[in-house]
Amino acid sequence: MGSAVVSRLLVAGYAVRVWNRSRQPVEAIVARGAVGVASAAEAADADVLCCMLADDAAIRSAILDAGVLEHAKPGLVFANHATVSVAFARELADRCAERGIDYVAAPVLGRPEAAAQGKLHIFAAGKPDAIARVRPVLEAMSQRVWPLGEDPQPANAAKLASNFMIASTIEQLGEAIALVEKYGVSASELVELLTGTSFGSPIVVNYGRRVAEQSFSPAGFTMTLGAKDLRLVLAAGEEKAVAMPFASVLRDRFLEGIARGDSDLDWSAIAKR
Amino acid sequence: MGSAVVSRLLVAGYAVRVWNRSRQPVEAIVARGAVGVASAAEAADADVLCCMLADDAAIRSAILDAGVLEHAKPGLVFANHATVSVAFARELADRCAERGIDYVAAPVLGRPEAAAQGKLHIFAAGKPDAIARVRPVLEAMSQRVWPLGEDPQPANAAKLASNFMIASTIEQLGEAIALVEKYGVSASELVELLTGTSFGSPIVVNYGRRVAEQSFSPAGFTMTLGAKDLRLVLAAGEEKAVAMPFASVLRDRFLEGIARGDSDLDWSAIAKR
Amino acid sequence: MGSAVVSRLLVAGYAVRVWNRSRQPVEAIVARGAVGVASAAEAADADVLCCMLADDAAIRSAILDAGVLEHAKPGLVFANHATVSVAFARELADRCAERGIDYVAAPVLGRPEAAAQGKLHIFAAGKPDAIARVRPVLEAMSQRVWPLGEDPQPANAAKLASNFMIASTIEQLGEAIALVEKYGVSASELVELLTGTSFGSPIVVNYGRRVAEQSFSPAGFTMTLGAKDLRLVLAAGEEKAVAMPFASVLRDRFLEGIARGDSDLDWSAIAKR
Amino acid sequence: MGSAVVSRLLVAGYAVRVWNRSRQPVEAIVARGAVGVASAAEAADADVLCCMLADDAAIRSAILDAGVLEHAKPGLVFANHATVSVAFARELADRCAERGIDYVAAPVLGRPEAAAQGKLHIFAAGKPDAIARVRPVLEAMSQRVWPLGEDPQPANAAKLASNFMIASTIEQLGEAIALVEKYGVSASELVELLTGTSFGSPIVVNYGRRVAEQSFSPAGFTMTLGAKDLRLVLAAGEEKAVAMPFASVLRDRFLEGIARGDSDLDWSAIAKR
Repeated sequence: MGSAVVSRLLVAGYAVRVWNRSRQPVEAIVARGAVGVASAAEAADADVLCCMLADDAAIRSAILDAGVLEHAKPGLVFANHATVSVAFARELADRCAERGIDYVAAPVLGRPEAAAQGKLHIFAAGKPDAIARVRPVLEAMSQRVWPLGEDPQPANAAKLASNFMIASTIEQLGEAIALVEKYGVSASELVELLTGTSFGSPIVVNYGRRVAEQSFSPAGFTMTLGAKDLRLVLAAGEEKAVAMPFASVLRDRFLEGIARGDSDLDWSAIAKR
Repeated sequence: MGSAVVSRLLVAGYAVRVWNRSRQPVEAIVARGAVGVASAAEAADADVLCCMLADDAAIRSAILDAGVLEHAKPGLVFANHATVSVAFARELADRCAERGIDYVAAPVLGRPEAAAQGKLHIFAAGKPDAIARVRPVLEAMSQRVWPLGEDPQPANAAKLASNFMIASTIEQLGEAIALVEKYGVSASELVELLTGTSFGSPIVVNYGRRVAEQSFSPAGFTMTLGAKDLRLVLAAGEEKAVAMPFASVLRDRFLEGIARGDSDLDWSAIAKR
Repeated sequence: MGSAVVSRLLVAGYAVRVWNRSRQPVEAIVARGAVGVASAAEAADADVLCCMLADDAAIRSAILDAGVLEHAKPGLVFANHATVSVAFARELADRCAERGIDYVAAPVLGRPEAAAQGKLHIFAAGKPDAIARVRPVLEAMSQRVWPLGEDPQPANAAKLASNFMIASTIEQLGEAIALVEKYGVSASELVELLTGTSFGSPIVVNYGRRVAEQSFSPAGFTMTLGAKDLRLVLAAGEEKAVAMPFASVLRDRFLEGIARGDSDLDWSAIAKR
Repeated sequence: MGSAVVSRLLVAGYAVRVWNRSRQPVEAIVARGAVGVASAAEAADADVLCCMLADDAAIRSAILDAGVLEHAKPGLVFANHATVSVAFARELADRCAERGIDYVAAPVLGRPEAAAQGKLHIFAAGKPDAIARVRPVLEAMSQRVWPLGEDPQPANAAKLASNFMIASTIEQLGEAIALVEKYGVSASELVELLTGTSFGSPIVVNYGRRVAEQSFSPAGFTMTLGAKDLRLVLAAGEEKAVAMPFASVLRDRFLEGIARGDSDLDWSAIAKR
């Protein structure tokens, strides 16, 4: 995902410093014009820090504990593209504020293929001035930037809701296909019927095909990450006393998949037969 | 729904005899050129009998118990547009076969508004010859006819799967909206984000708006009918040992709605706050 | 189950005529003093007809369709020990009433081992006079008869509730054991803790042992019967708009078990690991 | 709960120093012979520190952040009676070990009434030597101490499993009662049937009565605490990829109760009608 986004930034003419925990993806992207640096702190010596990490723990370790904020260039905008917990988003924003860094919640919607084609959507929240400075960068890596106010919470919540919608669409498709196959309708026939009638969103088209073909590898987004996002969805709901029974079903689907050894498959493997 | 469909048939130039248990809708449609008849049996004195009733029990009472099949014109094609149980579909087809009537399972996808605009989809299953005879009629009332073979079961299963997809989309939207609203994103904002990014199917657009506006009346399809369809979905799954946890959640949502007195609201009221 | 109950009746000195669809169990019980007869109708030529069949369909076929009620001895009390649907219980009672037969709903609580030891419980509903006549028979086969009024519905509902309680206790135990085993507590240790502290009912003791030992054969009550009873529970709930989310989870557990080929195992196999 | 336990210790002849965040319960117990102290650190100047706090956060604040471990008397045994998360239990044990304090996981099973009568059960895990030193104290406050090895995890997991068993028993009872009431069986009749037949554990007797009477106040254990414990159960399951669908249903019940304003009712209010 990071590689795809950096490619878009390079194409748009930006000078990009790249840091990643594992070296391999960095080398490929350096070959295309990025500058590899030895630490996240060096990457933060910039106007904008785009952070595309897996979860709260990864950001805590690679950014907060590594002292990146302390070494940031004055006036830095920290654009956080990860789907993080509501609680951690608050902590990050506070820590940035203490250092005079502008925090922009900038979760992205889309898979790596979409990122490579500039087809991501980005939900952006932060101070208007910070949004204005980071917007050209976000636009270079997406098809559309959706401003969601100053507070990072709404952007995070909308991102969690989107991922919940995707996961529950996968489950829908899985249940519907499992049913009709027993009555002589093939998975691909049902997906064609659905997308040809009233259900034809990009999500249904994309995941309908994957589930129909039982094609879960390579993963665009792993089961492990899916389980993490559902945990965040449920935690966000719990904080506000919102019961989400579909989200609970999904959580169990992810756990069952992980228990049978499918952690690294695409998260559509919750519909594995 | 019946009125909308008959209107389309009249516009297409068909001579239509109309019977309905309550008189009022019949009078309106007679004013537009249909012929009102006093019994379902008289309506069946035709080349094609289009039957748009609520459920198994209604068809049993109005058709089977009323002796309609016994009075049908020889060579009649019986097009059943209702979503019926898998077991009852089998019984109906058998009863028709005994009388030399061609049974065509022809469940429709779409709400009354769609029907009035000729925007229904129809899944059609039956003998090729019967399908051929009824096809112009089905085309006059829909935007597309999807042939699904000879056996009525696949058409019924596909219809149940479609209704399951709609109901679970409503629930998805309900849970997602309930979540984000607590974090400062309005329902209409979320629906705009979803439909503007990757979720923009007609179903999401239509029901997203209804759920966002909490607009459940007048009903296009009632809670009572939704509960019935979920019962059929679960029964079809049970017959083949297919567990459907989302369908179970939906079933409970319908029961909760009915228990609080919302039987006659639109079935999107499972997402009532 | 039938054999165990008949043995108790023989021990108590009753003259018992026995009919069963398969011959084998009849022969064993005839060797102990019962009289084997060739049809259910002959068995009904008695003061009391005790009917211990699997479900609605079995009773419809073996009793109603076989004309047993038409051949019953005048003044017969028909004691129905099966767990039947609420709707079918009503039909049976009506059919009996038409023939002057007293219908007594007499569902039993307990497994075959319990029956053999006279440890069943029986919920009995019917006219006081009919209950009085059948009571000695019921007492001979149980440890206690619980009178539940005249209407058969409450007895049926109480029986369904009991079976729901058992099935959900099995699921509880299954989930609790699956959890603690991952943290170094063995299944039998947990069951000992539970029964030694505050959870020590006969149901928890019995099923705790079965689940801990994963001992699901021979079946005291099969997965197929369990699935049937959960269907009745959910249907009874649906008729009155009572949502029962635990019952829905259980239903899916039974379907999953049946799908993996466990139909003939004991119903505690919903907790199979 | 704390008061009840201290009373038992006083009766058994122990000298007890008491600290609590709010003063009122302390005064009552001081009147009966305990010594009130001004800080948790003073309470820890003892041979055994019994800690009965609500959750991870309360212990972090009142013990860890308040420096209690730093001021503990050398050789202190720290008996933690709270139901804490698996992760926090590990952290606590490690922090104690650093200071030469023996950590004993000692979660208690039972409500305040049971505590007052010395009817608690205690699951105890820790070094044999520490268990030996703390055992007389634990026995003075309980009817039985269940040793569960050295590692605190099994004791915590067993406690979480017990609380899950209680909560799911409440839900069972709630669903069963909701069902039978619609068919003319009263809640108290059903509870009598259940406890008189095969379901008669103390948990079913106690909570059956509460649910039948809809008596949720005063709380022995609040909805808020129940929601916390279900969160811990689900998190413990998630850490080991154990799906627990009943636990998910329970979680939603607690959230629904909290959303309708019942946070301070007894946790059996998940079965509120």
